[in-house]
Amino acid sequence: MKAEILYGFHPVYEALRAGRRTFHEIYISNQTHAKRIKQIAAAADRKDLPITEVSPARLQTIAGAVSHQGVAARVSAYPLVDVADLLEAAKSVDRPPFLLLLDHIVDTHNLGAIIRTAVCAGVDAVIIPKDRSARPSPDVSKVSAGALEYMRVAQVNNIVRVVKTLKDQDLWIVGLDQNAGRSVYNADLTGSIGLVIGGEEKGIRTLVKQNCDFLISIPQTGKVGSLNASVAGAIVMYESYRQRFVRNK
Amino acid sequence: MKAEILYGFHPVYEALRAGRRTFHEIYISNQTHAKRIKQIAAAADRKDLPITEVSPARLQTIAGAVSHQGVAARVSAYPLVDVADLLEAAKSVDRPPFLLLLDHIVDTHNLGAIIRTAVCAGVDAVIIPKDRSARPSPDVSKVSAGALEYMRVAQVNNIVRVVKTLKDQDLWIVGLDQNAGRSVYNADLTGSIGLVIGGEEKGIRTLVKQNCDFLISIPQTGKVGSLNASVAGAIVMYESYRQRFVRNK
Repeated sequence: MKAEILYGFHPVYEALRAGRRTFHEIYISNQTHAKRIKQIAAAADRKDLPITEVSPARLQTIAGAVSHQGVAARVSAYPLVDVADLLEAAKSVDRPPFLLLLDHIVDTHNLGAIIRTAVCAGVDAVIIPKDRSARPSPDVSKVSAGALEYMRVAQVNNIVRVVKTLKDQDLWIVGLDQNAGRSVYNADLTGSIGLVIGGEEKGIRTLVKQNCDFLISIPQTGKVGSLNASVAGAIVMYESYRQRFVRNK
Repeated sequence: MKAEILYGFHPVYEALRAGRRTFHEIYISNQTHAKRIKQIAAAADRKDLPITEVSPARLQTIAGAVSHQGVAARVSAYPLVDVADLLEAAKSVDRPPFLLLLDHIVDTHNLGAIIRTAVCAGVDAVIIPKDRSARPSPDVSKVSAGALEYMRVAQVNNIVRVVKTLKDQDLWIVGLDQNAGRSVYNADLTGSIGLVIGGEEKGIRTLVKQNCDFLISIPQTGKVGSLNASVAGAIVMYESYRQRFVRNK
């Protein structure tokens, strides 16, 4: 199984806490006295994991990134799940499943940002296509502030087929589409839901859109085109959170 | 007055539409046949603005950026406003003012993302500090997809003093603080509001926080620390939008 190099405080720390990856080696800068790096060293010690002190220059070479913040780790590949498993996990909790389907988000930054928000908003799992899509990576883990280490992510060959599978499992498939007549604020998002977010350039593809149960848009004032994909996703995820979890005054 | 080089379709196109900048020259790639570049050329023609066709390499040199998308423009400096003007403008519309105060957002990407969302959510103006803050620039205009060209932005020496001025003008100052006991969903955001968003690392500074009328937080499930600053801002801006503009079913 291919190893990966995680870098930065949050990815390494959250991967340690999440416990889903095998840690082969942890590298920390011999020039750092940062409290949070000591925190990682202590957590690694408790788990008997090998720690190596290296120079900042060497760390940069290992991490392949400037923003290593004094720590990197060689770990097992990102633990993808399959759709059947994530459905089972989502159904095992005491509330309706809330899944996210990303229809070709290609930007690493957007994928990391969406996953970070998804963890905060209580999304159960994220489904992405295998082709023409950003995929879980150390960079995505960094952008997500380590949230990727907790999220269940499935990579699938065909989003339309998964949409059909989810509908068979009694999920409502809701597409976020700026041209939709129905506002997110006039949609019931409290049930079992698969929310589809389209790619940065073209939004949701036609065939996926046709297979959605309904489409929603985010109302906008002003003159500019549209919201960023990760921001639009955040607004819908949190409107769903509000409807599900917040008691009306 | 210092000139700037805007680059990319949205910044140049929206600056043309917004009409707040003087255009000295527009540069378009002689290798592009993109419809939207033709759109810019046509708009420039109607306004009798000088257009120069250049090679892509030359355009990259002019833009100082790879992501010029075939167009750049030499324009007058970004039109900052002062606080008195933006207050007057906000009060001239037929609804309570909604202002944003950014307490040291340093990342260009976050500033651009926040301004893009702010335009969509109907925010009247954005106030930023002069020091230790990202500031309006061609990069910010690019990240904001041109939204910066419409937003009123004021740069101030002292955020605390502005907070006091706004309170004198009967605005409620609401701070977004992850440690606040009150949820954004239990706060009334329908009145005249100045929403304070803190910097990426440390949030709102103590003295600013002490001068807020109240603090709100965004509820979060799961294990990771917190939402990205621009995402958190978007969730609060849109909850305010919902409370202000959406009729309850």
